[in-house]
Amino acid sequence: MKPKALISPPPLKKGDKVGIVSLSSVLDEKRLLEGKEIIENDLGFEAVYSKNILNVHHNFAGTDEEKILAFQEMLDNPEIKGIIAGRGGYGASKIIDKVNWETFKQNPKWLVGFSDLTVVHQKLQSFGIQSIHGPMMVTLKDDKKSTTSLKNALTGKNLKYKEKGHHFNREGECQGQVVGGNLCLLAHNIGSTSDISFDNKILFLEDVGEFLYNIDRMMVQLRRAGKLKNLAGLIVGQFSDLKETTVPFGKTAFEIIEEHVSEFSYPVTYDFPIGHENENRAIRCGEIMKLEVLKDMVKLSSI
Amino acid sequence: MKPKALISPPPLKKGDKVGIVSLSSVLDEKRLLEGKEIIENDLGFEAVYSKNILNVHHNFAGTDEEKILAFQEMLDNPEIKGIIAGRGGYGASKIIDKVNWETFKQNPKWLVGFSDLTVVHQKLQSFGIQSIHGPMMVTLKDDKKSTTSLKNALTGKNLKYKEKGHHFNREGECQGQVVGGNLCLLAHNIGSTSDISFDNKILFLEDVGEFLYNIDRMMVQLRRAGKLKNLAGLIVGQFSDLKETTVPFGKTAFEIIEEHVSEFSYPVTYDFPIGHENENRAIRCGEIMKLEVLKDMVKLSSI
Repeated sequence: MKPKALISPPPLKKGDKVGIVSLSSVLDEKRLLEGKEIIENDLGFEAVYSKNILNVHHNFAGTDEEKILAFQEMLDNPEIKGIIAGRGGYGASKIIDKVNWETFKQNPKWLVGFSDLTVVHQKLQSFGIQSIHGPMMVTLKDDKKSTTSLKNALTGKNLKYKEKGHHFNREGECQGQVVGGNLCLLAHNIGSTSDISFDNKILFLEDVGEFLYNIDRMMVQLRRAGKLKNLAGLIVGQFSDLKETTVPFGKTAFEIIEEHVSEFSYPVTYDFPIGHENENRAIRCGEIMKLEVLKDMVKLSSI
Repeated sequence: MKPKALISPPPLKKGDKVGIVSLSSVLDEKRLLEGKEIIENDLGFEAVYSKNILNVHHNFAGTDEEKILAFQEMLDNPEIKGIIAGRGGYGASKIIDKVNWETFKQNPKWLVGFSDLTVVHQKLQSFGIQSIHGPMMVTLKDDKKSTTSLKNALTGKNLKYKEKGHHFNREGECQGQVVGGNLCLLAHNIGSTSDISFDNKILFLEDVGEFLYNIDRMMVQLRRAGKLKNLAGLIVGQFSDLKETTVPFGKTAFEIIEEHVSEFSYPVTYDFPIGHENENRAIRCGEIMKLEVLKDMVKLSSI
């Protein structure tokens, strides 16, 4: 069966208004302003803040109600052509089922983010709509190449990444919808109404700040839920700032993942520049891409 | 519909051999011996160690293969009338799908443990077989009343707990299969082949050492997976040694749970003596019990 892409929202044009939303943890004003500058000067859009953009409710950018209301306005406002998340953290899964998606489903727009925003991507994928896994307001200034990749993704250009490989790479070539995101949130999403099948898809994974045993546990959950067995291919992104228990776990994150996919035969690439490091290439989740994996080089391209 | 209990393995008799297994983290010899003494002197059984009982493989009580082999022997040996886990920790979900359950299913025996062992309980419940959530080797000496409750559970006696309530308690009365265990493992199990429905059941929850936001996240996962909406009742056990992030989460574990079940109307009791504190009453998972919740008192009894 030929893979079929999800619905692609209209590409953004120079000067388009993009809504900036806060769905997760509290946003820092300085970093928000740095992101705004890049959106306006480098990406060429106009940044429009949501109502709760700098709200503070404990560790959250506002109460659930404030966040839902502010996000809803951005989704429903026809002048807002795309939406970029301010920051990840925690909290998107607490509000995602309470949003009214009807207007958005009729008139999809690009939604951008990563980390906790994986929850939103999976929700949109469950509707059959593409969204962009890539830099957010607080990380836009981290890496020029990744910011350019986001501009390309938003404006409907072909994406073409040629990156270094890794000695763990399992060579091969495949095509499929690219889906994925933060491993913790992918495991967290299992069993929800926005849970999706990864069969015949190219899955990408990244995570930050987790205990190594927990990386293993989340891979066990993905595996036990049948999420790993029928992939077209696997892109292992960055696993940053991982933590050890008193007795070391005895394996690195890449070794853990390698072990979990050793019985399957699809191509796998490691240390792809997606995740919480400076480099974080934009991916249109739900787009059909071609993945070519060699030992020391990997290509991922729109087809 | 009248609730129906799961299959009850035969009760143990004085002098019966019980297998001691290590399915999770490394076991400490001193504490193992303390547990053995209680099994033999207070419970009146003979303790038989599995092959890997004191094995060490990083943080695990042996490699997965060693653990599976040793557990399999205990499951299949007809002289072993019950099985008690040495300790929890992490690792049961890595081996549980690789065990051959055929002999056990034909001739079920009681299996005892908590924490990481929740994975095993859910597997057995998916087969329709009862098992005991209760003290393990390393906690047997912690509380006399709980050890007695384990003896009662293993020997087929009625269980009858009258415990203090909590000002959060939501009063009411219900009957149903009692199921549950460690919140982290219940969330982890979602989507696996041993995932079970909690509909019309009395669910109990406990956890230890987690960040408060993660308690919330796991409750979100249970809720999004539809696990909370059709309960007969909820028993909130102990939530011990919880951790805060730099910015406090702003709610206690009980407040988090209360919020997640506020839209439902079943009875809920808090701070029941199940979990990682000294007191840890034995529960036959899959047995029909009656739960009576008052503000300051709660009764849970076999019927």
